[in-house]
Amino acid sequence: MSAIRHALTVKREDDFAAWYQEVVSAADMAEESGVRGCMVIKPWGYGIWERMQRLLDARIKVAGVQNAYFPLFIPLGNFEREAAHVEGFAKEMAVVTHHRLISDGKGGLIPDPEAKLEEPLIVRPTSETIIGDAMSRWIQSWRDLPLLLNQWANVVRWEMRTRMFLRTSEFLWQEGHTAHETREDALKETMRALEMYRAFAEEDISLPVIAGEKPENERFPGAVGTWSIEAMMQDGKALQAGTSHYLGTSFAEAANIRFQDREGGQQLAHTTSWGVSTRMVGALIMTHGDDDGLRVPPAVAPQQVVILPMLRDNDGDAELLGYCDALRAKLASEQVLGEPVRVLLDSRPGKAAAKRWDWVRRGAPIVVEVGPRDMENGRVTVLRRDRLWGGDAKPNFSVLDREVAARTIPGLLVDIQKGLFVEAHDRREANIESGIDSLDALAEFFGEDRRYPGWAEVQWSRPTGAALEAVTETLKAHKLTFRNVPLNAAPADGPCLFTGEPAVERIFVARAY
Amino acid sequence: MSAIRHALTVKREDDFAAWYQEVVSAADMAEESGVRGCMVIKPWGYGIWERMQRLLDARIKVAGVQNAYFPLFIPLGNFEREAAHVEGFAKEMAVVTHHRLISDGKGGLIPDPEAKLEEPLIVRPTSETIIGDAMSRWIQSWRDLPLLLNQWANVVRWEMRTRMFLRTSEFLWQEGHTAHETREDALKETMRALEMYRAFAEEDISLPVIAGEKPENERFPGAVGTWSIEAMMQDGKALQAGTSHYLGTSFAEAANIRFQDREGGQQLAHTTSWGVSTRMVGALIMTHGDDDGLRVPPAVAPQQVVILPMLRDNDGDAELLGYCDALRAKLASEQVLGEPVRVLLDSRPGKAAAKRWDWVRRGAPIVVEVGPRDMENGRVTVLRRDRLWGGDAKPNFSVLDREVAARTIPGLLVDIQKGLFVEAHDRREANIESGIDSLDALAEFFGEDRRYPGWAEVQWSRPTGAALEAVTETLKAHKLTFRNVPLNAAPADGPCLFTGEPAVERIFVARAY
Repeated sequence: MSAIRHALTVKREDDFAAWYQEVVSAADMAEESGVRGCMVIKPWGYGIWERMQRLLDARIKVAGVQNAYFPLFIPLGNFEREAAHVEGFAKEMAVVTHHRLISDGKGGLIPDPEAKLEEPLIVRPTSETIIGDAMSRWIQSWRDLPLLLNQWANVVRWEMRTRMFLRTSEFLWQEGHTAHETREDALKETMRALEMYRAFAEEDISLPVIAGEKPENERFPGAVGTWSIEAMMQDGKALQAGTSHYLGTSFAEAANIRFQDREGGQQLAHTTSWGVSTRMVGALIMTHGDDDGLRVPPAVAPQQVVILPMLRDNDGDAELLGYCDALRAKLASEQVLGEPVRVLLDSRPGKAAAKRWDWVRRGAPIVVEVGPRDMENGRVTVLRRDRLWGGDAKPNFSVLDREVAARTIPGLLVDIQKGLFVEAHDRREANIESGIDSLDALAEFFGEDRRYPGWAEVQWSRPTGAALEAVTETLKAHKLTFRNVPLNAAPADGPCLFTGEPAVERIFVARAY
Repeated sequence: MSAIRHALTVKREDDFAAWYQEVVSAADMAEESGVRGCMVIKPWGYGIWERMQRLLDARIKVAGVQNAYFPLFIPLGNFEREAAHVEGFAKEMAVVTHHRLISDGKGGLIPDPEAKLEEPLIVRPTSETIIGDAMSRWIQSWRDLPLLLNQWANVVRWEMRTRMFLRTSEFLWQEGHTAHETREDALKETMRALEMYRAFAEEDISLPVIAGEKPENERFPGAVGTWSIEAMMQDGKALQAGTSHYLGTSFAEAANIRFQDREGGQQLAHTTSWGVSTRMVGALIMTHGDDDGLRVPPAVAPQQVVILPMLRDNDGDAELLGYCDALRAKLASEQVLGEPVRVLLDSRPGKAAAKRWDWVRRGAPIVVEVGPRDMENGRVTVLRRDRLWGGDAKPNFSVLDREVAARTIPGLLVDIQKGLFVEAHDRREANIESGIDSLDALAEFFGEDRRYPGWAEVQWSRPTGAALEAVTETLKAHKLTFRNVPLNAAPADGPCLFTGEPAVERIFVARAY
């Protein structure tokens, strides 16, 4: 029996971190830019992010949230206001101090001392303060509420140890910022955004997630409550893929967002914020990638079908291209997942087999190869990325009539979209341990000898303050973190794993990115 | 005869600059942010930019250009390389020198002296150098060419005197960057991008433009040739709305973009770059705005039709809303200009008349008002933004059967899209003077006493170097500039206005933004 010769050199089971780097590179997703902590997002990787943007943006707009754009630079003073009010505000930020370069007289350039800014500007790490300033101008009365804003933007948080898509100094994201009359309205919006993220992750990216509340020590600084969606990567670690915060009135107080209420009194608005970033691309890779590269769910694939003519550099090529283009045109006229099929006829020079493996590594959902013999027989050869290998360790090609292929491919794409979700969902469920009833058992579950252990769902008494800190330290010793308290979980029915008191709810414990 | 009471306080003919500011504010387009030189783009303004992005991006993709994303920060060294190679490189740029803030011990924050960057980073003013670095990594062989990239991004050029959308320190744009085997291929791409911009401006924004080549002293620094699209604003000034550059091989030399050619030799790639920015929103305002606010061409209007129910805060409201929503749903199911009609049912609290004028100022192409009496009669009241006033100085309402309105509104939108173009085109043509045959006549045409004089199309001998500088100085004395040498103009048939030598082509002279 011959062994499969995979398209990557590193396997997930051997070295997950090295495998991740290889996928990022082999699938042409991103690369180091030479600028500290910043990556170049290459066309295929950016195309996936664009698809995510398109689909999430539609969900944002349906909710009545309006996009706007706020300055990249935030005056230092805004952070002083914030620092006074929020302890532990991260201060690793890019600081602009000058607005001009001049010659240093030796052929080089230096910041012009004459062009030093009176007040340094900070490259936004997030935009609560600057959007809060705008909200305070735009909101006078309860009639101006709710104010539902979103921004697609780049943000910068200086990072010492970076990993592409997962932690980079500059990253791309959307940040929703909303203001409401009441706590109830704001909480409802917080939960709406959370549910939007769940649906976006699960339906658009085939990424099963657990939506739930973060413990108090993992809240966004200054928030009253933080909720997240958490996804399990194939190494069992958790990745926080999106957050939604209820900020109470403290941000409104700092930015002076007040309104005249229905009774004529002055009130502080209740605000929320919520965000999803290019980190989601990392989640996609670590959830759907395999030992042959990436597998992109069709809804976010820049190209869903790639047609590869086996060109021979001879007179027959024109006819073959025409045959392929007819299939392309037919597919492009079909709809799948609510949009026209995205199909590429890849007629670049190069060997068809090399191009096939290139598209396999990139994770195009379906590759269609067409050679002169296929054409003679009115056929094409179809390869599904999610069922790449046959029983004989060879690629699992299906030869189909061209018309049959055109008719069935849209359905296959829907199948792949669902199949990737089911596969990831089943894997996650198989790797959640909910029977752990002691700290020893927890330590054993996450023991050094256990490879990719998954998550533990444990019962706890929701300790706060110093008690929570103590529990967190216990976890930290095992490199573990609390992920979230899942919504709609079964009620607690036993003692707290940490305090022994009666548990009030369930919470996930895991290693995390 | 009663006079029209316009929705703005300033008229174009009285003070164009003040009128512009009023439209930006009254149409809810943008506002000062409090951060020097940076604006907040408000939802309606950003919605227009999003529509422009969507339509231009589709044109970019059709051309086979791929989007990617490159770092916000560019190492200072890249500019030193560039400065050596391009004289007069603008140096007004935001310089990042530190990556952390610390407490100053007095309750404030300062850049941490311990966190000073070894090499300052520049916030990108444009990305030729950083994208050139990537191209040098990605291109090995002629098979890798053409490499067609585009980036949607924010860029920063420190500006002392700013005007919203027209000149701001931070602005949004797209920058195309391409590399080619030959000069011919690169020039072809330069002209393709120029023609794409022409079609985008004229078809999508109803903005008539002149596509042509800039004189040599107006080229992008380091470019071999620069082409632009130029639009005439209602005050007769020109606005450069997009540029396309053929960069020769000098940028490739600076970034070391070399490839193995078809004969096995090493060659420098020929590169191009081309860009359109949020400036285009300023062009839209100054072309289509009138004394009642903005008029947005339907193809780029965030909402094409706004339905205003005349709510009475009583039991009848529910039925009225249902009646309006049926129209909304019917319109939303129709296609116009290749997309579903964008229609908003504005059921916010507030008086219908106030809301009407709000939408008039914002320039929604069609407002539909519906009162209880309209509903009883199965009718609606339609107001076209481009034909706002009737002969009696009253709004030009048309009362239509609801079903007739639903059927005819898509056609009206197409009509408005075309009508705005024709109006702007005719105005431009009426304000181009091509009979000027002396410098005195030119000075007279642009004399102090002439309000909003328009453009002069003159014949010239295409002087270069010092001769061109001398001519440019002559123009400068009258605050005039060369705009471009239009493509497809009639051949020259007389003497050069400036040198008296035989003219070789025609060129536009105008005041400019």
